[in-house]
Amino acid sequence: MKTDARSVVTQLLPHRTPIRHTADAFAPANIALCKYWGKRNEALKLPLTGSLSISLGDLGTRMRIQLAEKDHLIINDEEQSTESKAFWRLFDFFNLFREPDTFFKVESINTIPMSAGLASSASAFACAVNGLNDLYGWGLGNRERSILSRLGSGSASRSICDGFVEWNCGTREDGMDSYAAPLPVVWPEFRIGILTLSSDKKAVGSSEGMQRTVETSTLYKSWPTQVKKDLPMIRQAIEDHDFTTLGTRAEQNALSMHATMISAWPPILYWQPESIETLKQVHVLRKDGVEVFATMDAGPNVKLLFLDQDTGDIRNVFPELQLVEPFATVTD
Amino acid sequence: MKTDARSVVTQLLPHRTPIRHTADAFAPANIALCKYWGKRNEALKLPLTGSLSISLGDLGTRMRIQLAEKDHLIINDEEQSTESKAFWRLFDFFNLFREPDTFFKVESINTIPMSAGLASSASAFACAVNGLNDLYGWGLGNRERSILSRLGSGSASRSICDGFVEWNCGTREDGMDSYAAPLPVVWPEFRIGILTLSSDKKAVGSSEGMQRTVETSTLYKSWPTQVKKDLPMIRQAIEDHDFTTLGTRAEQNALSMHATMISAWPPILYWQPESIETLKQVHVLRKDGVEVFATMDAGPNVKLLFLDQDTGDIRNVFPELQLVEPFATVTD
Repeated sequence: MKTDARSVVTQLLPHRTPIRHTADAFAPANIALCKYWGKRNEALKLPLTGSLSISLGDLGTRMRIQLAEKDHLIINDEEQSTESKAFWRLFDFFNLFREPDTFFKVESINTIPMSAGLASSASAFACAVNGLNDLYGWGLGNRERSILSRLGSGSASRSICDGFVEWNCGTREDGMDSYAAPLPVVWPEFRIGILTLSSDKKAVGSSEGMQRTVETSTLYKSWPTQVKKDLPMIRQAIEDHDFTTLGTRAEQNALSMHATMISAWPPILYWQPESIETLKQVHVLRKDGVEVFATMDAGPNVKLLFLDQDTGDIRNVFPELQLVEPFATVTD
Repeated sequence: MKTDARSVVTQLLPHRTPIRHTADAFAPANIALCKYWGKRNEALKLPLTGSLSISLGDLGTRMRIQLAEKDHLIINDEEQSTESKAFWRLFDFFNLFREPDTFFKVESINTIPMSAGLASSASAFACAVNGLNDLYGWGLGNRERSILSRLGSGSASRSICDGFVEWNCGTREDGMDSYAAPLPVVWPEFRIGILTLSSDKKAVGSSEGMQRTVETSTLYKSWPTQVKKDLPMIRQAIEDHDFTTLGTRAEQNALSMHATMISAWPPILYWQPESIETLKQVHVLRKDGVEVFATMDAGPNVKLLFLDQDTGDIRNVFPELQLVEPFATVTD
């Protein structure tokens, strides 16, 4: 018999009785350096490969969850309709955890611009789990919170920790070994630059794009081999503070993920003309000796990876850059 | 012992004594519907997979070869310097065929705009072989001329015939089974539309791009599987006049080839912003019910595949389209 999401939750939760009326929570957004692209189990959002990300410090989702008479969702001060996708996706997720007579008022604030095309679902679902953990007093650790967040959105499994985070693929059918854990590395000079090139709604959602790629791209068959090469090299480069290797692997990994989409049918072209232009600018900068690398997710925007020392040179070319210091709040 | 190009030529030529002073020749350019991307032997330009193309009718290279006191090359009425790449590439090729005391004056005219980014080397080398065949009176057939043209430029092996042409990969080390032959199909309604988006010089030559892809792209490992799927389907679709299958396979094949380049390191981005814009316009047209498909070679330009009946709709979106009727000169 196949495991479903509800039975995973039942295994992990000590009880379903709230211990307080209100909980405040936060979870960071994250950007994958070695991408998650392709599921082996749709219902449990189990990945086909491992992945590795960097959390974005205090950029992410803040959420207040309160017991209420009926379900409400307010995102960035805007009440969401009960028919909206955001509404049913969140409360369907909550149904896994609560008794049928429990309702919530959820106020959610994204501290990262929605338009930046950064996976807000990752920080939102991780934040929801953090909030429920507090409201119910479950006392769950990273492992359990990562597994539960994954049931809402795959990449949310990585948004439960700060800094560099690795999501272990796992092999179990119930996914109990598929969760994320932080790498014990602090790299204060590490910088991320976000370039918002387009805030158009995506033509193809990332979950649909992922599935179409797995089903129709012949080149995707080599994607697990790509990850098998990149993931250990990126992990080692982080431990060694070897930025060149990290950047090289991260950029090739991201472009290879997009290559699998481009080779799908119908082709998935998240790239906009501006994406190409930006990638070419990054390559020119690199030729000029500035160590900057690009990464992209299921959308047209480009994120830059670099070290603090090159911030000035990079800002000269990209004045609109939104700078992220992932370790700014860490006192080490 | 490895076979070299000179020994292949020696096997095929009956003699090296010109029988006339002047020869006039022509060879068409060609566009691959299933791409040639990757060599198994650099010196003999033996491919890793088969490929299939359509020749462009009277668009290609016209050449007059004359015996002379020293080597001259004139392309489109412009004398080429003895240091130019075009000069040494052509006369190095001629060295395979001639005695050391033989020199040529070569006047070459491209009947297809150079700026269109269509592989002029394919028609040029095939045309050179046709010209030599006449000048020396060798009486070589398609097979021999295809093998000899390949030694100049891989895709030239397909430019020796009109219409649809398949280049058999072959397995022999000396490449004697790696040559192109026409498919006996006439499809008068078949159209090609050339869009010249950029005439910038390529940053990476196609031969270098091919080699870099084979050496550094993990996704390239699945490229032969892609060809194994596409090539027989495209061949069958041509026989059946099944345009939907032909277009679908040709577009996915071309985008997959570009995907292998995008996943190489350093990434090979032949695409310009305009390439993306054009691909998206093609996809919108298709959503609107117009059967048009895109193909691209080692450059930023997009070529459209469609049937005569849709020419009007396609011209409305792409007024700058250069229309090619590959079977216009065929009387069937």
